[in-house]
Amino acid sequence: MQIKVMTNILEQNDQVAASLQDRFAKAGIFVLNLLGSPGCGKTSLLENTIGALKEKLSIAVIEGDLFTAKDAQRIEQHGVPVVQINTSGGCHLDANMIDSVLDCLDLTSLDMIVIENVGNLVCPAEFNIGEDSKATVLSITEGDDKPLKYPLIFKQASAVILNKVDLLPYTNFDMQSAVKDITSIHPGVTLLQVSCQTGTGLEGWYNWLSEQVRIKKARRASDV
Amino acid sequence: MQIKVMTNILEQNDQVAASLQDRFAKAGIFVLNLLGSPGCGKTSLLENTIGALKEKLSIAVIEGDLFTAKDAQRIEQHGVPVVQINTSGGCHLDANMIDSVLDCLDLTSLDMIVIENVGNLVCPAEFNIGEDSKATVLSITEGDDKPLKYPLIFKQASAVILNKVDLLPYTNFDMQSAVKDITSIHPGVTLLQVSCQTGTGLEGWYNWLSEQVRIKKARRASDV
Repeated sequence: MQIKVMTNILEQNDQVAASLQDRFAKAGIFVLNLLGSPGCGKTSLLENTIGALKEKLSIAVIEGDLFTAKDAQRIEQHGVPVVQINTSGGCHLDANMIDSVLDCLDLTSLDMIVIENVGNLVCPAEFNIGEDSKATVLSITEGDDKPLKYPLIFKQASAVILNKVDLLPYTNFDMQSAVKDITSIHPGVTLLQVSCQTGTGLEGWYNWLSEQVRIKKARRASDV
Repeated sequence: MQIKVMTNILEQNDQVAASLQDRFAKAGIFVLNLLGSPGCGKTSLLENTIGALKEKLSIAVIEGDLFTAKDAQRIEQHGVPVVQINTSGGCHLDANMIDSVLDCLDLTSLDMIVIENVGNLVCPAEFNIGEDSKATVLSITEGDDKPLKYPLIFKQASAVILNKVDLLPYTNFDMQSAVKDITSIHPGVTLLQVSCQTGTGLEGWYNWLSEQVRIKKARRASDV
């Protein structure tokens, strides 16, 4: 019974997600669904990314949280358009939520939208929200056992960002084991080791993002 | 529609939880529902706790994870009974899952059962699983903004454990602000600052747990 209802909810969600994807494709906007645990560093990664790329790319952000506009306030200070969605206790964003706020953004002027999902390694992985790609952030302070415990969110991610590597000396995180697990769950995934605190490794992330934007624009040009 | 279904699911869950609570009350067992993000240190806290208290108290553990028996294997090494529940992708434990594994434990011999829930700051807070108390672990590497973003799980916790305080010098975690937020969400909550790595502050946690076990046993004695 519970499973049937879940299937219906996911099907309805997929329909809305498909129409969102259509709008983004027509506008040539690359849309990233940014995932990870509470406190893994999604917002910090986003702040660094905006700082590094906002002169080259026109970026907007949609922030998902249960409550508060704390993350939107952080992003706003970097001078890009941002919309906060509050799920009022809901554990993930869905396509309807994105659809309902999209008119707040000027799609004709954008190269990329980053949607920061609710901090949660489980539920957000199950709902498409019209994105081109998912990226999953795992902070090394969470432990190297997480990929095998939460495989779906690593399987679905086009890029996995291992964050807070500056804290490696103070933890027992086994990088070799984590990399082995992630690449066994998702062979060929783009895997980046970064620190949003020190800037280590972020160049690779910026390059990956810029390349996705370029591909999306090229695809649109060939469609027109 | 989705809300109605959710209400039914929660009502059914509460019925099973009530019957579990009844079984635990008759046996005089204190049951703790241990909550927190992936990697906040729930299993480490549990390993320390078993090491410190297993000579005084008869403890069993129920481990909840989407996949793997990694946590159960860690607990098993400490020589206490442990049962692993795999939710196969599910984002929380529910009362039926606990009910289905309870016959694996000898309830007549136990003082305390700790149920380590799925690593998730959202969904597990909504489902009672027959526990006497919830305890929420927040690692300081997750950031001081988490209590206001995920208030329910802090409101429902009888004890909040701020873990990984040994990493405070390497982060920008504002302890004063976090404590203020947690105590404003839940005035009177038991708040402990600990490090499972160094042992700092764990004595307070052991005392709190021992006191809960004592109270539960006293209540049972007065009922008989």
